[in-house]
Amino acid sequence: MASEDIGRIMSIQSHVAYGYVGGKAATFPLQLLGYDVDVVNTVNFSNHSGYRRFGGTKASAEELDAMFSAMKQNGLLRPTRILTGFVFGAEALSVVARSVTKLLQDDPQIVYLLDPVMGDAGRLYVSPDVIPIYRSLLPKATIITPNWFEAETITEIKIVDRASLQKVLTVLHETYSVPNVVISSIPMAKWLWDATLTDVRSASCDQEQSLLCLTSVRAAPGTVSGPPSVVYTGCVPLVPGYFSGVGDLFSALVLGHYSPPSPSPSTDSPPPLVRAVSLALTKTHAMLCFTEKHAFMLPPEERTVTDDELDEANPERRIRRMRARELRLVQGRKILSGEAMGELREMRKWEGFWTSDNKAYTSIHPTLYCSA
Amino acid sequence: MASEDIGRIMSIQSHVAYGYVGGKAATFPLQLLGYDVDVVNTVNFSNHSGYRRFGGTKASAEELDAMFSAMKQNGLLRPTRILTGFVFGAEALSVVARSVTKLLQDDPQIVYLLDPVMGDAGRLYVSPDVIPIYRSLLPKATIITPNWFEAETITEIKIVDRASLQKVLTVLHETYSVPNVVISSIPMAKWLWDATLTDVRSASCDQEQSLLCLTSVRAAPGTVSGPPSVVYTGCVPLVPGYFSGVGDLFSALVLGHYSPPSPSPSTDSPPPLVRAVSLALTKTHAMLCFTEKHAFMLPPEERTVTDDELDEANPERRIRRMRARELRLVQGRKILSGEAMGELREMRKWEGFWTSDNKAYTSIHPTLYCSA
Repeated sequence: MASEDIGRIMSIQSHVAYGYVGGKAATFPLQLLGYDVDVVNTVNFSNHSGYRRFGGTKASAEELDAMFSAMKQNGLLRPTRILTGFVFGAEALSVVARSVTKLLQDDPQIVYLLDPVMGDAGRLYVSPDVIPIYRSLLPKATIITPNWFEAETITEIKIVDRASLQKVLTVLHETYSVPNVVISSIPMAKWLWDATLTDVRSASCDQEQSLLCLTSVRAAPGTVSGPPSVVYTGCVPLVPGYFSGVGDLFSALVLGHYSPPSPSPSTDSPPPLVRAVSLALTKTHAMLCFTEKHAFMLPPEERTVTDDELDEANPERRIRRMRARELRLVQGRKILSGEAMGELREMRKWEGFWTSDNKAYTSIHPTLYCSA
Repeated sequence: MASEDIGRIMSIQSHVAYGYVGGKAATFPLQLLGYDVDVVNTVNFSNHSGYRRFGGTKASAEELDAMFSAMKQNGLLRPTRILTGFVFGAEALSVVARSVTKLLQDDPQIVYLLDPVMGDAGRLYVSPDVIPIYRSLLPKATIITPNWFEAETITEIKIVDRASLQKVLTVLHETYSVPNVVISSIPMAKWLWDATLTDVRSASCDQEQSLLCLTSVRAAPGTVSGPPSVVYTGCVPLVPGYFSGVGDLFSALVLGHYSPPSPSPSTDSPPPLVRAVSLALTKTHAMLCFTEKHAFMLPPEERTVTDDELDEANPERRIRRMRARELRLVQGRKILSGEAMGELREMRKWEGFWTSDNKAYTSIHPTLYCSA
């Protein structure tokens, strides 16, 4: 039996009784990988807010403080890794930020993945006063996993072309000293398509129907010449419709699969983050396909398409849609453990990202669609 | 992949960020068995109270009510099984009792396991006003899993001999209409030893160092003659020292492994509960041994023996002891999944339990010690 300890992850995010978002989307996958998980609940709700109605409470700053204090006094603050996701409100986020900062001061070996959960697709769903707190946390993070919109929000740079994307990464790596940046699920805009995927077009991604995941690993400090980072990307087909908890699952898997780099890394092989993101991307996408396949087999009234207008008119419709699309983490646990995740979607290096003669990379592994 | 749904268990009990008691001891094992788990947290604490210091809050009756209401309105109250464990205080327990009752009224097929967590070894650690609420819940339960002391407390019968044990089971089966009673971890008193285990003595259990687990399945309603129930027992060696969450894990596994009886059960084969309890006993004991083995390898200052007097004088000592004995559910997950649980500890029928010529049963499987 694999009885050895591979580590202890403190996961600080929301809890829902029903379904899989926040801590519920992160804990089971990390336990399956062999991590003890300290589950700190920032909210304690019946279900995710996409259902519109939910009951329960959020932890106040004082409650969170009391939890961390008791753990400190009991010698129970000993994670090897920390994962922070959605925290409700600036006051509670401040407590989390203070506690995480203290933990990292006490043990600089801790790997910290910060998922600055703030919004998606142009819409902020947290109060704007959390933004400066996230900014203050960035320099403590080993890895950050903003989505496209969150990367824009944090850096205050609109990403419209390769130059602005370069600027975003420069700000994150240099101004905020983040060594590892993962920008998850970038909608494939025309310029991005043109800049990257020249030889993938003929394979299985098409512009309108795919998402790009980008990983940027900062060059070793002290490197005077050369590009500021190495950039890898992976492309996945867009699974239509709205699924909750996907980003939370992805971030958890990135952290779970990450191995800190060796002191003298080989310059030829991809940085350790790249393999972690490849695995996380593969498993997350496989889980989405697995969940979608199930939703597709439900009775017609249970598998409505995403249509906010119809949902406004009929809240029951939205509820059925949300329920049918809860991630099937338990039934698909062999995806999470890696026993049945399908072929690995290896990220590929974006060779010319930082140079003026941007060169699209060579496809070896065609991107796979859901085998629905 | 095992993609089919085997069921959805609503687990209503305490949550701790660090370690494994209550919901943290139940959820992961049940997910590993393939159940979706709706995790309703009755308290949200940093760690279990055995550490003496803990931070966090308990859910108020209003909060619990709001959670259940939202789930009801969202059509998310659809468990196939319910597991209730520790609930903090009579007011919150009343809300839980009301919600569970309503669920069972709406769907009488739901299997409900009630673990009336109240105390242990002669000490009540809840307020006495929860006792009548537990009594009112008994007739709704499919299975109950009190320990020895809780069985005495609920029935107000001191168990000192076979006659009083018969009385306790009669009250539970007849007055409270509980079909399946599991009394976990009964210290092996002299009378119990004499009454049961005549031929096991020579095997591997000895009186001072073992615990008995007793399962009593009520005779089918309408049976006019014959004993009131069939009784099976299993014996496990006592693992010395105090471990938390063991009862919570055991109850979760009993529920997870239970299959409702077929409409026309064979009278020869043991009732379905017996196999569930055998599996739960085997896995729980294996997990205890696995955890103890790890504790034994810790540095000497981390593996102190249970000694309340020394702990009173030195609270740090208690903390280290508690920490070293947190169940190793994640590292021992192959025990939980059954891939590496060891030989099954089959329960054996106590043939003459209800008759005047009590006949000790025949040992086939010698009880196994921890292979430390």
